[in-house]
Amino acid sequence: MAEQPDRGHRMREVFQTQLQEVQVRLVEMAEDTVRIMEKATKAFTESNVQLADEAIAIADQTGNKALALDELVIRILAKQSPVARDLRILVSALRISASLERMGALSGHIAAIARYRFPGSAIPAALHSTFVEMGSLDVELGRKCVQLLRNTDVDFAREIQAEDARVDELHRHVFDVVLSDDWNENAMFTVDVTLASRYHERFADHVVDISAKVSYLTTGEWNEQE
Amino acid sequence: MAEQPDRGHRMREVFQTQLQEVQVRLVEMAEDTVRIMEKATKAFTESNVQLADEAIAIADQTGNKALALDELVIRILAKQSPVARDLRILVSALRISASLERMGALSGHIAAIARYRFPGSAIPAALHSTFVEMGSLDVELGRKCVQLLRNTDVDFAREIQAEDARVDELHRHVFDVVLSDDWNENAMFTVDVTLASRYHERFADHVVDISAKVSYLTTGEWNEQE
Repeated sequence: MAEQPDRGHRMREVFQTQLQEVQVRLVEMAEDTVRIMEKATKAFTESNVQLADEAIAIADQTGNKALALDELVIRILAKQSPVARDLRILVSALRISASLERMGALSGHIAAIARYRFPGSAIPAALHSTFVEMGSLDVELGRKCVQLLRNTDVDFAREIQAEDARVDELHRHVFDVVLSDDWNENAMFTVDVTLASRYHERFADHVVDISAKVSYLTTGEWNEQE
Repeated sequence: MAEQPDRGHRMREVFQTQLQEVQVRLVEMAEDTVRIMEKATKAFTESNVQLADEAIAIADQTGNKALALDELVIRILAKQSPVARDLRILVSALRISASLERMGALSGHIAAIARYRFPGSAIPAALHSTFVEMGSLDVELGRKCVQLLRNTDVDFAREIQAEDARVDELHRHVFDVVLSDDWNENAMFTVDVTLASRYHERFADHVVDISAKVSYLTTGEWNEQE
């Protein structure tokens, strides 16, 4: 009776299918953050209230998607009691889903500013091109995050980890402009660009965090001996 | 030979000791966030650069403490393969440590603003009392978070979940003041109070998130059947 090996083999197959399901859902969440950021940055830089509403509608669902994914991960942990790399993948999935949820919220906040100021603009002319670039960098980083979650390639993960430098630079540039003597905009613009710049920067931070987790998964010193 | 039950009993004892260790470390991290916020709010409202430095020094350690705690949790998951409530406690510990890490970073950011503006003040007179109250509410919430992680009392957890309402109100008040016709401060003040207010609000959010997790641990529908 080769029942035991068969059952073990079947358990392993079930587990692989479950891991794939986790990966598919992470990719979907990452795709959502790209969709939200694409719409949010257009809404913000072009005062487009319809796109803002669409961004906010998708952002409103990310919390539930993260919750559902976390529940799936916990169910797998309970059923399969994975160790070593399998366990690391699942714990990383929990952290990555938390980052993706925050990315959805942050890009939703950018859309909310645009919506709040409509039909006016939330950005004065002096910073328009800066925010166009920041938004496009965040969308690009979001797309790379999708790709990374699909291929989990460690070199690609390392590459992405340096890519928020330009976003950080633009974030500092926003403050330089706002704090310069030439800045004569009202406080509303100052508040809006301060927060929007912060949200863009945090979005990029989370992509870097996710990349670091994927690197760690592949290369990290993992020691389950105490 | 009653070896098996003995071993099971011993495993259970080891597990309880490990869970206690996780709890002790979470409490320590929460105590750190209180210490950071106490120093940061004083630094920020009284332009005290020494307290700002002390706050930043503690905040700099929170990342490593969170990492060490997460590693401990992963080791326990690998060794003990817990299910049901035990598994939930450990997964919640991962999430709570992430929130505590962010709370340390956010209060550190408040101290960093104070340090950056020293010897000047980062807050104009019109908002001084608002930030004194916000800071003191955050410290109070932090202390309740410490207490909650010690006693994990579900009624207390529910009580805390409503307590960020006043912080949210003060956060909105900051914007009302900044966007009113009476606000004639320079852009530097506008930027500083906008970000500081956001950091205070997010700190309180995380306490609410932690309370929600503790409630869920005690009352949540937990179903490990698929």
